[in-house]
Amino acid sequence: MSSHHIVRDDQEPALIIANGAECSNELLGQLLEWSPIVVVLDNAIERVLQLDIKVDVLLGDFDGDFNPEIYKEKQFPLEIVHAPNQDKTDLEKAFDYLIEKGHKAVNVIWATGKRADHTITNITNIVSYRNKLKIVILDDHSKVFLLPNKFEKWYTKNTPISLIPIGKVSGITTQNLFYPLYNEELTIGYRTGSSNHVIKDGIVKIEHTDGDLLLMECWDN
Amino acid sequence: MSSHHIVRDDQEPALIIANGAECSNELLGQLLEWSPIVVVLDNAIERVLQLDIKVDVLLGDFDGDFNPEIYKEKQFPLEIVHAPNQDKTDLEKAFDYLIEKGHKAVNVIWATGKRADHTITNITNIVSYRNKLKIVILDDHSKVFLLPNKFEKWYTKNTPISLIPIGKVSGITTQNLFYPLYNEELTIGYRTGSSNHVIKDGIVKIEHTDGDLLLMECWDN
Repeated sequence: MSSHHIVRDDQEPALIIANGAECSNELLGQLLEWSPIVVVLDNAIERVLQLDIKVDVLLGDFDGDFNPEIYKEKQFPLEIVHAPNQDKTDLEKAFDYLIEKGHKAVNVIWATGKRADHTITNITNIVSYRNKLKIVILDDHSKVFLLPNKFEKWYTKNTPISLIPIGKVSGITTQNLFYPLYNEELTIGYRTGSSNHVIKDGIVKIEHTDGDLLLMECWDN
Repeated sequence: MSSHHIVRDDQEPALIIANGAECSNELLGQLLEWSPIVVVLDNAIERVLQLDIKVDVLLGDFDGDFNPEIYKEKQFPLEIVHAPNQDKTDLEKAFDYLIEKGHKAVNVIWATGKRADHTITNITNIVSYRNKLKIVILDDHSKVFLLPNKFEKWYTKNTPISLIPIGKVSGITTQNLFYPLYNEELTIGYRTGSSNHVIKDGIVKIEHTDGDLLLMECWDN
């Protein structure tokens, strides 16, 4: 993966590299193919530099002994964003940064794995960015995003689809899923729509009236 | 890790080995030290057998080409529990099995990592077992359990503590946490209590009046 000093129109989704478990080089390569602006969170930069990626923004609270300035030369030009607000995670601060810069969409990697608290927080907190930023969290087994109230997408037969309510979600109706829902309610911790799958090649429709519903496309290999 | 053909009184927590990412041999060894009853979920058995562990129960829906009978001889005596109910995950069915057998507590490993839908569902679904089974989910970076309305435990200074509300949790008050809460509300997806830590060696108190609150002790190394 070489550097990418090209002119960008920022229409492509940005890429945030968070501080959880690394993904495969294959996934990383796919996401870098369109030369997104690359934002790295805090000391993940140390692992990222080993991958020979051009980083555009380094963001974090930089507490502890971490000195971000030493990366400026290695990654010139590199914007360093010091974000000390302890009420938000570094990932949320990176979302806020991208929104402020006018970005509309972002892919996020390394946001899962390792610490379960970070995994859960990173995945569930995307719901508060509805209508502000189109966020997709990816790892080697998962693709996660927030559903609009009416969602339609073409899927191949047997694609695994999980519907995870962040809180309580009501009025859920699905078409072309093996375990269908008809105006039903899902509640995190009590009833989720995990491990469903697509019946046949074609459009899957998922509607809901209230609440925040995540769609997860996940696979085992 | 050798087999453990000893008399047990089932007072020790059982051990469920789920079907996510493997944990370290060190964690596995610690949990096996007290010779718990070992329940393995579905085709995780194939990975478990390579570890030379004595398995007591193999539980799953066993769909696909998987034939559990071939493990009976290798792991004699092995109870095989065919649990085809598609409304519950294999992990929930294992909880139900243990409750029916009179168990009071269980540790769960391999419930996180790999697929994000399984990770989220496995962790959050423990809240519906309140008062039925004391469940602790562990991996190499995390220890997760449901809090009673009043919780007190001795911790060392700087222990990372995350409070994750499964839905909305109100009336939360803490003592001896660096970011204190006073009769406050946390809501999954919007405001969580991730990445807190213990101020000083001593008792940490966490109270809440309504809702399901998970405590996660997580660490990076």
